[in-house]
Amino acid sequence: MPLSRLPLIAAATLSTALLASTSSQADVDKAIEYRQDALGVMAWQIGPLGDMAQGKVDYDAEEFARRAENLAGVAHLPWEGFVEGSLRGDDHGVDTDALADIADDRADFESRQQTLIEETATLAELARGDDFTAMRRQVATVADTCKGCHDNYRAE
Amino acid sequence: MPLSRLPLIAAATLSTALLASTSSQADVDKAIEYRQDALGVMAWQIGPLGDMAQGKVDYDAEEFARRAENLAGVAHLPWEGFVEGSLRGDDHGVDTDALADIADDRADFESRQQTLIEETATLAELARGDDFTAMRRQVATVADTCKGCHDNYRAE
Repeated sequence: MPLSRLPLIAAATLSTALLASTSSQADVDKAIEYRQDALGVMAWQIGPLGDMAQGKVDYDAEEFARRAENLAGVAHLPWEGFVEGSLRGDDHGVDTDALADIADDRADFESRQQTLIEETATLAELARGDDFTAMRRQVATVADTCKGCHDNYRAE
Repeated sequence: MPLSRLPLIAAATLSTALLASTSSQADVDKAIEYRQDALGVMAWQIGPLGDMAQGKVDYDAEEFARRAENLAGVAHLPWEGFVEGSLRGDDHGVDTDALADIADDRADFESRQQTLIEETATLAELARGDDFTAMRRQVATVADTCKGCHDNYRAE
């Protein structure tokens, strides 16, 4: 290969690499926004459950059960948004509080997701009954599960 | 009442009104963000369904069924976010494409929500079977249902 052609080839390769990176970055950005949306939905649903559990507002059996059902129904959703290259320090166009530690300890991160899915399912099941003390205790368990993950994997 | 006291009382009333309005506006802002989150989750879930239905990517039975289930599971969520005072032209701090027409025709807006809930449930049911032609047709029906609402109630 004539040496004179090298820069052209290098430029073409670089250009292709940049295009690939741009397309992938757009996908990563969408994934970050998606998981933020899904976590936002969870936060909205858990809000009134926390308020009722803490006595800030009166317990409303219908609303409590509906929120608990909604929460359990979305608890499996956010996690697919934690795609490769979507953490703090990675090259993407959306701000995120998701720390790089997630990549370093995927197994623990995924185990915590599973725990949340199970604990919210338990809450939804309790909410269909009439043991409000157990419901309140379970809201605290769910909140602790959220917090445990935030403490480990979310920026302050 | 001495006329000289009026400005003070007016100021106090105004101040209370502003405080009330501030608190309520924060609630409205959160409701707008919540519905945008929930609609974002729907968009994310329907994306691959549309791609598979249109042949842009190969049909994957497991993924199709999972997305359809997720979509049906969240289709009832966004609507509680359309609280009073949260439409275009209302006084809130979050940009929204939701037109004031929603307030003028609540019954139609709610009827369309119900249709979406039913059509996504039908899609999830079909997705558990093996009639891909029916699934594709139902994805189009769901997409038309989204579009019908957007055409009527979402800013361009």
